[in-house]
Amino acid sequence: MEGQLAHIGAGLAGLGTGLAALGVGNVAANFLSGALRNPSAAASQTATLFIGIAFAEALGIFSFLVALLLMFAV
Amino acid sequence: MEGQLAHIGAGLAGLGTGLAALGVGNVAANFLSGALRNPSAAASQTATLFIGIAFAEALGIFSFLVALLLMFAV
Amino acid sequence: MEGQLAHIGAGLAGLGTGLAALGVGNVAANFLSGALRNPSAAASQTATLFIGIAFAEALGIFSFLVALLLMFAV
Repeated sequence: MEGQLAHIGAGLAGLGTGLAALGVGNVAANFLSGALRNPSAAASQTATLFIGIAFAEALGIFSFLVALLLMFAV
Repeated sequence: MEGQLAHIGAGLAGLGTGLAALGVGNVAANFLSGALRNPSAAASQTATLFIGIAFAEALGIFSFLVALLLMFAV
Repeated sequence: MEGQLAHIGAGLAGLGTGLAALGVGNVAANFLSGALRNPSAAASQTATLFIGIAFAEALGIFSFLVALLLMFAV
């Protein structure tokens, strides 16, 4: 059983990767909701959209990295 | 029991894949909600729709990748 | 108990399949909500409806695939 419990941990980290998609989706969803209500302002907020996506996506990638490290590095 | 615990981990990562669908669905849902209220602006935000879907879908695919790695690579 | 733990993993992945249905349902729900408020615009957004459903459904099918693989391939 040595080293096997790390694979459960990798699965839990994969679960975290999926949860980060909820955050990314929430950012894009609220941008679209606002941009379609007031399209003339959408272009000025595109940079903010990418900042929001980037920070949420980074956490998902960190979680994916934890899964990879648990599988192949520990 | 060697290698079997990795299968629980693969299941947990598969659960994360399903959770990512919530994020993707949220993006598309808000686009549709806004586009049906203001159809004339829908075309200008189609690119943003696909950007939002792509980033959320990517995290779901990372989670699916963790599940596949846990089943067949470790 | 050899091979039995994979069945817990398959159940967890099946749970993810069910969660993906929430995302798909959210897309269709928002389409219906908007289309019934503004029926004249519904036809122009039908393609977007299917795109949104397809991306969310794909993640649910990946999760189902993980469950099938855990039961019959590992």
